Amino acid sequence: MDRERDETPIGEWIEERYWDFFATRFRVKEVLFSERSPFQRVDVVDTHGHGRMLLNDGLVMISERDEFVYHEMIAHVPLFVHPRPERVLVIGGGDGGTVREVFKHPSVQHCRLVEIDGMVVEACRKFIPQTASALDDPRVTVTIADGVEFVAGTEESFDVVIVDSTDPIGPAQPLFGPEFYGNVKRVLRERGIVVSQGESAFYAVDTQKSLLEILAALFERVNLYNYTNTTYPGGLWSFTFASKGLRPVSDFDAARVLRSGIDFKYYNPDVHRAAFALPEFARKALGEFLGEE
Amino acid sequence: MDRERDETPIGEWIEERYWDFFATRFRVKEVLFSERSPFQRVDVVDTHGHGRMLLNDGLVMISERDEFVYHEMIAHVPLFVHPRPERVLVIGGGDGGTVREVFKHPSVQHCRLVEIDGMVVEACRKFIPQTASALDDPRVTVTIADGVEFVAGTEESFDVVIVDSTDPIGPAQPLFGPEFYGNVKRVLRERGIVVSQGESAFYAVDTQKSLLEILAALFERVNLYNYTNTTYPGGLWSFTFASKGLRPVSDFDAARVLRSGIDFKYYNPDVHRAAFALPEFARKALGEFLGEE
Repeated sequence: MDRERDETPIGEWIEERYWDFFATRFRVKEVLFSERSPFQRVDVVDTHGHGRMLLNDGLVMISERDEFVYHEMIAHVPLFVHPRPERVLVIGGGDGGTVREVFKHPSVQHCRLVEIDGMVVEACRKFIPQTASALDDPRVTVTIADGVEFVAGTEESFDVVIVDSTDPIGPAQPLFGPEFYGNVKRVLRERGIVVSQGESAFYAVDTQKSLLEILAALFERVNLYNYTNTTYPGGLWSFTFASKGLRPVSDFDAARVLRSGIDFKYYNPDVHRAAFALPEFARKALGEFLGEE
Repeated sequence: MDRERDETPIGEWIEERYWDFFATRFRVKEVLFSERSPFQRVDVVDTHGHGRMLLNDGLVMISERDEFVYHEMIAHVPLFVHPRPERVLVIGGGDGGTVREVFKHPSVQHCRLVEIDGMVVEACRKFIPQTASALDDPRVTVTIADGVEFVAGTEESFDVVIVDSTDPIGPAQPLFGPEFYGNVKRVLRERGIVVSQGESAFYAVDTQKSLLEILAALFERVNLYNYTNTTYPGGLWSFTFASKGLRPVSDFDAARVLRSGIDFKYYNPDVHRAAFALPEFARKALGEFLGEE
């Protein structure tokens, strides 16, 4: 367990505790939404420096100021490696930011979003249209359901699966398990790719290891890539990349990115390649699970 | 001005405020040193999660847990681009961490450290030997003096100058000015390189711009590279790179890194190259000042 649930009421500052020795604080303008769903506490607060922020159980999920980093990196890396993504599955991601980036790819015909907590979708639709307005796109189907059960039962298939999950505590815990990824493999088409929120590079190496070990037992290619936003504690965070064969750098066509005309704020071809260059401590700790890029 | 001076006494948590809307907190075990020098307040605290930390005016300078990131990236990038660094000047860096990394290069015969605040050196020698023990190396000369005055007056010359400074407030402010860099250019040998602490990529774009503009007016090559540690607020931080001709990626010999046998924790050849891949927002904001890599 990495990030501690915070049950205290929101004051002038919201504070996210990370382990028991580290915290980040954001100055609050106004609390816009604060309710408890069957799964977690859901808060939307307006802040002085980071716009509106979504928190689940007191953990920062997104801020309007820096959500572009996370959403561009979770979506464009797999979608520019896959030669022609048409059907995309997003597990979690009820804020809508990942779906927004997915639809910048004109080949995508349908995106299914499976979010366990309808209250997250509702709160973001009401207060964070910057991300949630993507959920009004006619090409998206929003399903409020358990992602683990969804992939176990569905007959649909997908080119890319994006596991846009919270940390492996609370409702997201089974999303870090082997049964889930066995079913993800089953619903993925022949050239399929799955990327997943892969936790903190500095503080969650054990979680990263266990996730990569599960992926390496199932998929032909497994890699890890990093990004840095401003609101997650401890700097460097990661996504896992696993595929039925496609390599994240060697099979990546930078010219396609430039031709796309997408107005990126974080992502670009250099950033795509650079994200797979792991710090030496991570390469040593995780290298045994990682394949050719 | 980016990071606010904190004048409050140290409690169970130390807090660094960043602008007026963002803060990071570290849980304190014990305050080991807390004095006021003619230049700033100097604190060394032992923490629960990050080992011993040095703070100047309440701003985190280093922690034992993650100082390897900053020090490896400020030192090895220029020293592996220069074909044979023999004489190195470090401005600031009184904790000794940069000097420690510099001496991992066997070609270095002499390193001069010019630190304005003797109390920083004294506190680190006593409480943070992990970095400060490098200052006992017979190849280093520690000079307690103003770095701006030193480069204005010295007749020495250097292959690499490393400006290991605090933020551009308080005693470090003149280190972000054009007179200083004019003199740095003067003391640099023909193939010389200067790298400097370049502030936060997300929150200090204006400071980065003004520093790059000064460098671009003086040096043939100017670039910026990023790194991420865990204790500086807001994820991505940067160093500027300026040289009399050497390019940071094209003139970089990865094989030399592997031959060196240095036991890196963050740096490696992939990280070296990847560090120059700027996020799109930074490329757009700073691209006019940046040259060929």
